[in-house]
Amino acid sequence: MIYIGIDLGGTKINAAVFSLNGVILHQASALLGGRKGPEVGQLMIEIVRELLSQTAVRNETVSIGVCVPGIAYSKTGTVWAPNISGWENYPLREELQRAFPRSVVLIESDRTCYILGETNFGAAKGCENAVFMAVGTGIGVGILIDGMVLHGKSDIVGAIGWMALKPPYVPEYDACGCYETYASGTGLALQARKLLREKSSYEGVLRSFPIEEITSYHVFDAWESGDPIAEKVLGQAVEMWGMAAANIVSLFNPELVIFGGGVFGPGAKLLGRIYEEACKWAQPVSIRQTKFIATALPGTAGLYGAGAIAIQNAKTFDAKRIYYGD
Amino acid sequence: MIYIGIDLGGTKINAAVFSLNGVILHQASALLGGRKGPEVGQLMIEIVRELLSQTAVRNETVSIGVCVPGIAYSKTGTVWAPNISGWENYPLREELQRAFPRSVVLIESDRTCYILGETNFGAAKGCENAVFMAVGTGIGVGILIDGMVLHGKSDIVGAIGWMALKPPYVPEYDACGCYETYASGTGLALQARKLLREKSSYEGVLRSFPIEEITSYHVFDAWESGDPIAEKVLGQAVEMWGMAAANIVSLFNPELVIFGGGVFGPGAKLLGRIYEEACKWAQPVSIRQTKFIATALPGTAGLYGAGAIAIQNAKTFDAKRIYYGD
Repeated sequence: MIYIGIDLGGTKINAAVFSLNGVILHQASALLGGRKGPEVGQLMIEIVRELLSQTAVRNETVSIGVCVPGIAYSKTGTVWAPNISGWENYPLREELQRAFPRSVVLIESDRTCYILGETNFGAAKGCENAVFMAVGTGIGVGILIDGMVLHGKSDIVGAIGWMALKPPYVPEYDACGCYETYASGTGLALQARKLLREKSSYEGVLRSFPIEEITSYHVFDAWESGDPIAEKVLGQAVEMWGMAAANIVSLFNPELVIFGGGVFGPGAKLLGRIYEEACKWAQPVSIRQTKFIATALPGTAGLYGAGAIAIQNAKTFDAKRIYYGD
Repeated sequence: MIYIGIDLGGTKINAAVFSLNGVILHQASALLGGRKGPEVGQLMIEIVRELLSQTAVRNETVSIGVCVPGIAYSKTGTVWAPNISGWENYPLREELQRAFPRSVVLIESDRTCYILGETNFGAAKGCENAVFMAVGTGIGVGILIDGMVLHGKSDIVGAIGWMALKPPYVPEYDACGCYETYASGTGLALQARKLLREKSSYEGVLRSFPIEEITSYHVFDAWESGDPIAEKVLGQAVEMWGMAAANIVSLFNPELVIFGGGVFGPGAKLLGRIYEEACKWAQPVSIRQTKFIATALPGTAGLYGAGAIAIQNAKTFDAKRIYYGD
C-alpha cells in the first residue's frame, strides 16, 4: 500500500507520500494559478501521478487522503470549497477513484485534517480528546473526541467562527459571525481600521499605512512596539479567544486545545493571557485538565492530517473491493 | 435478558423493566428520604429486587442501565452526584454487579440519558445527530453526534451551564457560570430578585411575594399576565437560550435541539422566539437544517434513557463473561 496525503489550499496543492509512521518519503506541489473547477481536479491527478512515478513500487494499491478548504461531504465524496471557482458540489472522490482505479480515497475538511495531523504526528500524538482552533482569514475547529472526529448531520461541524459571544446582535456580525468579527485575521484588521477611523487624535505607528491596507500582521507588529490601538484590538481578541476556548473546554472536556492557523503564528505569544481568560469562564474541573498549546505543525498540519487519514482509511478498508478495475 | 432502567434523581429513584422496543412492563419507585452514601445504593438494590420479583422469568441475565444526576466515570463505574451526600466517587457499578452477579451494568449522566431517551423512544426517534438542552436548577447538554454519545477525557462533557456568552466576566458568574446566571431556573429567579431590588417604583404582581422566595415559576406566572419584570427577565433569557442553542448548532450541525428540564415546561411557549434569536447568530446553513422542539418525555427522559442504555449495552455485551457467578 502507498499512502498519499494531499493538502488543497486556496492558492496551491501540497502532496506527499507517507510512510506508515508519518515520515514524508516524497513530496510535490503546484500553484493553482487561477485554475477553476475540473482544472483543479486535473492538477491534483497530475501531482499524484508525479508522486507515484517517484516511488519504486509498481501496481500497488494507493490510499489517498485529501484535505480541502471547505466542506467534505462524507456520504457523497463531493466537496464545497468557496475559494475555488466551480467547487460547489465537486465530485472529487469519484474523479480520483476513476483516475486511480487501484485506489481508496478519503476526503476531510481542513479543520478535521489539522486535528488528525496533530494527534497522529504532531503536538497531540496519541491524544484521544483534543480540539484544533484554526485562526486564519476565518476561524474553524477540528474536534477529536473519544478518539473520533465529528461530522454531524451534513459535515458542517466546527463552524465556531459563528459562535455567539457578545450580545446584543449587531449587523457587523452578518458577514461571518460574531467570533470572527473580533478574532479572525480579517476581524483583527477590521477592528483596527474601525479604531483608526474613530480616534483622529491617534498618531502611532499604524498611521504609517493607508487604513484600508491594514492587516492583522500590521496589528501584531504594532503591538510588539507597545502601540495602544494594537493592544486594544488584541486585548479584545484575547477575551474572545479565551471565551471561545473556555466554551470548547466546558462542552468537550478535552486534554488539549491547539491554536494554529496564520494568526498563531504571532498570536502564540498571547497563549498565557488566553488561558488566563479561559480559566475565568470554563467549567472549573475541566479547565484544570486542559492544556492550551500552539500547533507543532505550522503550515503543514493539513498535509500531515491528509497523510493520517490515508493511513487510517487503508487500515479499515477491505482491499479486495478495490480490484474491480482489473 | 431482562432490561432494567433506573433513574436516580435528587429526591427519588424511579425504575422500570423495559421491553426491547421500550415499553415499560413493570415499574417501581421510592423516595430517598434523606438517605446518604451506601443507603442510597442499598435502596437501589431493593428496587431492582422488587422489579425482578414482578417478572415471571427466573435465572435470566439482567441488563441494568442507570441515570445519575452528576458525572458517571465510564472507566471506573463510579459516580459523582453532588446532591447525594457521600457520593463523591461512589462505586455504584461494582455494588450493583456484586448484588446481581448475573447482571451487566452501565451508568451514564442524566444529560446523556435524556438524549438517549429521546433518540430511542421519544421526539428524536432514529435521529443520529441531536442535542438535549436540559434547563432546570442548572443547565447541561446531552450530545449525540454521528450516532454516538460523547464522553471526553474524564466524562465531563456537556457542561454548557458554564458557557461564556456575555463579557466582561463579572463575579456573579463565579457560582455556576455565565449561561446559568441568566437562564437556569435558579438564574431566572436571581435576575428577577435583582430587578425587584433595583426598581423600587415597580408595583406589579411579583411584589406579592417576599423577594427571597421568588422562583422561576413565579416569573413564568407573572409573564403570562404581561408583567414587565418577568418579560425583562425572560427576554434576557431568550437571548441567552438562543445564543447557546446557536453555538450548539454551529459546533455540532445537529438535526434537532430538544429543550427539556423543569424550565421547559413553561418555557416551551418561548421556543419560537428562541429559534428566531438563534437564527441571527448560528452558522446559516446549519441552522436551516435544525429544528428546535420541546421534550416528548417530560420528567421521564432519564428513565427511558436508562432503559435505552440497558438495551444497547446488552446488545454489545458478550453474555458468556457474566456467568462467572455460577
